[in-house]
Amino acid sequence: MALTTIAWNMQSWLDVAPDSGFSIHNLPFGVFETRDRGLRAGIAIGDYIVDLAVLAERRLLSVPTDAPCNEGDLQRALNQPVLNDFIALGKPVTSAVRLRVQELLAASSHAAQAPDLWTHALVRQRDAEMRMPLRVPNYTDFYSSLHHAMNVGAMFRDPKNPLLPNWRHLPVAYHGRASSIVVSGTPIRRPCGQIKREADAAPIFGPTRALDFELEVAFAIGKASQLGRPITTSEAEDYIFGLVLFNDWSARDIQKWEYQPLGPFLGKNFGSTISPWIVTLEALEPFRVPTPSQEPKPLPYLRFAGDTSFDVHLEVDITTPNGATMTVCRSNFKHMYWNMCQQLAHHTVNGCNVEVGDLMASGTLSGPTPESYGSMLELTWNGRNPICLPDGSTRTFIEDGDTVTLRGWAERDGVRVGFGEARTTILPAWCTEA
Amino acid sequence: MALTTIAWNMQSWLDVAPDSGFSIHNLPFGVFETRDRGLRAGIAIGDYIVDLAVLAERRLLSVPTDAPCNEGDLQRALNQPVLNDFIALGKPVTSAVRLRVQELLAASSHAAQAPDLWTHALVRQRDAEMRMPLRVPNYTDFYSSLHHAMNVGAMFRDPKNPLLPNWRHLPVAYHGRASSIVVSGTPIRRPCGQIKREADAAPIFGPTRALDFELEVAFAIGKASQLGRPITTSEAEDYIFGLVLFNDWSARDIQKWEYQPLGPFLGKNFGSTISPWIVTLEALEPFRVPTPSQEPKPLPYLRFAGDTSFDVHLEVDITTPNGATMTVCRSNFKHMYWNMCQQLAHHTVNGCNVEVGDLMASGTLSGPTPESYGSMLELTWNGRNPICLPDGSTRTFIEDGDTVTLRGWAERDGVRVGFGEARTTILPAWCTEA
Repeated sequence: MALTTIAWNMQSWLDVAPDSGFSIHNLPFGVFETRDRGLRAGIAIGDYIVDLAVLAERRLLSVPTDAPCNEGDLQRALNQPVLNDFIALGKPVTSAVRLRVQELLAASSHAAQAPDLWTHALVRQRDAEMRMPLRVPNYTDFYSSLHHAMNVGAMFRDPKNPLLPNWRHLPVAYHGRASSIVVSGTPIRRPCGQIKREADAAPIFGPTRALDFELEVAFAIGKASQLGRPITTSEAEDYIFGLVLFNDWSARDIQKWEYQPLGPFLGKNFGSTISPWIVTLEALEPFRVPTPSQEPKPLPYLRFAGDTSFDVHLEVDITTPNGATMTVCRSNFKHMYWNMCQQLAHHTVNGCNVEVGDLMASGTLSGPTPESYGSMLELTWNGRNPICLPDGSTRTFIEDGDTVTLRGWAERDGVRVGFGEARTTILPAWCTEA
Repeated sequence: MALTTIAWNMQSWLDVAPDSGFSIHNLPFGVFETRDRGLRAGIAIGDYIVDLAVLAERRLLSVPTDAPCNEGDLQRALNQPVLNDFIALGKPVTSAVRLRVQELLAASSHAAQAPDLWTHALVRQRDAEMRMPLRVPNYTDFYSSLHHAMNVGAMFRDPKNPLLPNWRHLPVAYHGRASSIVVSGTPIRRPCGQIKREADAAPIFGPTRALDFELEVAFAIGKASQLGRPITTSEAEDYIFGLVLFNDWSARDIQKWEYQPLGPFLGKNFGSTISPWIVTLEALEPFRVPTPSQEPKPLPYLRFAGDTSFDVHLEVDITTPNGATMTVCRSNFKHMYWNMCQQLAHHTVNGCNVEVGDLMASGTLSGPTPESYGSMLELTWNGRNPICLPDGSTRTFIEDGDTVTLRGWAERDGVRVGFGEARTTILPAWCTEA
């Protein structure tokens, strides 16, 4: 990994707050827009964005000599409204760009002495709008948190035997809706749909009464695979470009009525929110941890070597319409039972192909303790134990005007690699109560 | 519909066989490739393809004066490797192009006297390769055949009560995998995966032993909708560009083990096959029939007016490696319980948005009689009644080297509108028997 690793405890000549997740060790990729620049590819550093197209125009970025593309390809890829073309250039190129930016931003760099360059190449984050970083050709949602699967199984099936027989043998997953994935800051309208109440013989139509978030992390595919050609666990990381926070919005009552026998559909596909900055796998390198032990031992195609889980602290805030905020969940990405390499190996073992920009989400990342549960369904135990918010109001599920914010960061020895946030405000439904 | 309807019983100056589905009444859109032309948009007529880019270059196509695009946009859209940009120009443009081609091909046309034009504008279908006509941003599979749902329910749940409670209240559906949709003629490899046999305590890994086709028809979305904004049943046809045959390949044993609780995943996403020609909704106009009666009466958002089902005869052939062919299924698209307008209204009632090129498949189109069942699962009743083929071999499911061909056409008063075919040959698995 020599080529892609950033020196530990490096500092930038730019003023970066010690608690900023966008340290010089992170340098995540995103797409931003300003009034005069249009849509551009950028890298986050502290409170700023590095405009990559400006660096490319000034010939400050270069592609490795053995890469199958040239500077013109890079420049074109950085001027697209999404990062797919840039990512598709391959890790040798994207890693070289990231390392070059780190070099330019390092305290030791002569580039600090080029005020004209940085006047053009740096944009304040508060002056820019973040956009969807990717066109997402396919979206898959896993169900890989043991604690979440146990909680849901205990609630709706059998508390003594909460896991279905297949759960410990394979990373259960389903295909979600790619079109309705939106970037942090985009409001989502409370969905309407069919709801079947216990007491009624037939379903009614109305707004969901059980709107929920799901705290998830998703990885973005960086390299396409061929139809019919599985990806092994040992190859998997080559195909993973980076990670984002993912809020898989859910309408529990709609889902409950519709999901048999083919799985969730309208209970999920009205919207999902991602954080705008894609944190590269390279940036997370120092935060590797072992995957939790798996029993029974998985089938050979799901076995893996090394530390392939990541220690990323995760939080969820609820902010009420009057501004009262409370952190309702503190969890960690490392709790995930099936790691990303296993997920990708499973997904493709039947020959299913992946495309650049595909998102594969973890499923709700609940930890072992109640305060780490990653959904209102679990935090309130299906509405039985409402959460009391600091303004005196209570919540069983999410209400109109509420804002839900996911946050995440990795930290070690004072070095922070953060995801920023995935923030969503809920608008009222278009339909009325039945 | 005056603008979009083709005169009845029209003839072409081109020699079109009476049993050709590509009559002058059809004129479906597709993408073809020849050695010297690259990828081009075309319209099928008899044994030929009309090269639309040639017509556009010669200024024989025009856009309506009130359309929000010009001839340059049309020319660019016709030179793309997929039809999405062309379709996105809107029905006023795509319908005008189709009607103009019909005018040029009509027996009464002076264009017949322009041999130089047709030398360039006509390509023999046998000299061209058909390609994926669309980039498919999202793929949804419905489960809208009552007979199929009853058969599956009777087989695996309760023969006396085969339908789940939600089935007659909503068009059940799930999201499928867009990346693995391929065009007719593309071989598909038998998938490997986890299979749990009754007698075993744990799953084994190996090639599926229950590879199946599913006879379906899919509609392609021609107009994008906004997130949060439902499409009503009365608006739905504005959003439907046209239809293709769809073979939703399935591995029944993999599906059976994995599908609880989130639905089908690896049992389906290794490949789906579509026919290359998109038959427009306009071409199917003369073949409207009433939707089968629905009991109980659906909720208001699922109610509709007029004849919104279509009488399209459907067939499935199996051809063995030694060339023996047998038609194993004869069904009809008109049997579908929930019509396309209802499917689209349901899909978007929660605010889910659609994109140009999305495919929405019907689910297996089984009819009421055993010979009309649209899958091997049903035709052999889960392998209990093998099919005897003309070469003396038998089939419970599909074997390596078999070719499965879907065909479909509408016909009335000697006028035929055909879909061509969706043909797939199965390659052996990469993994070995466990």
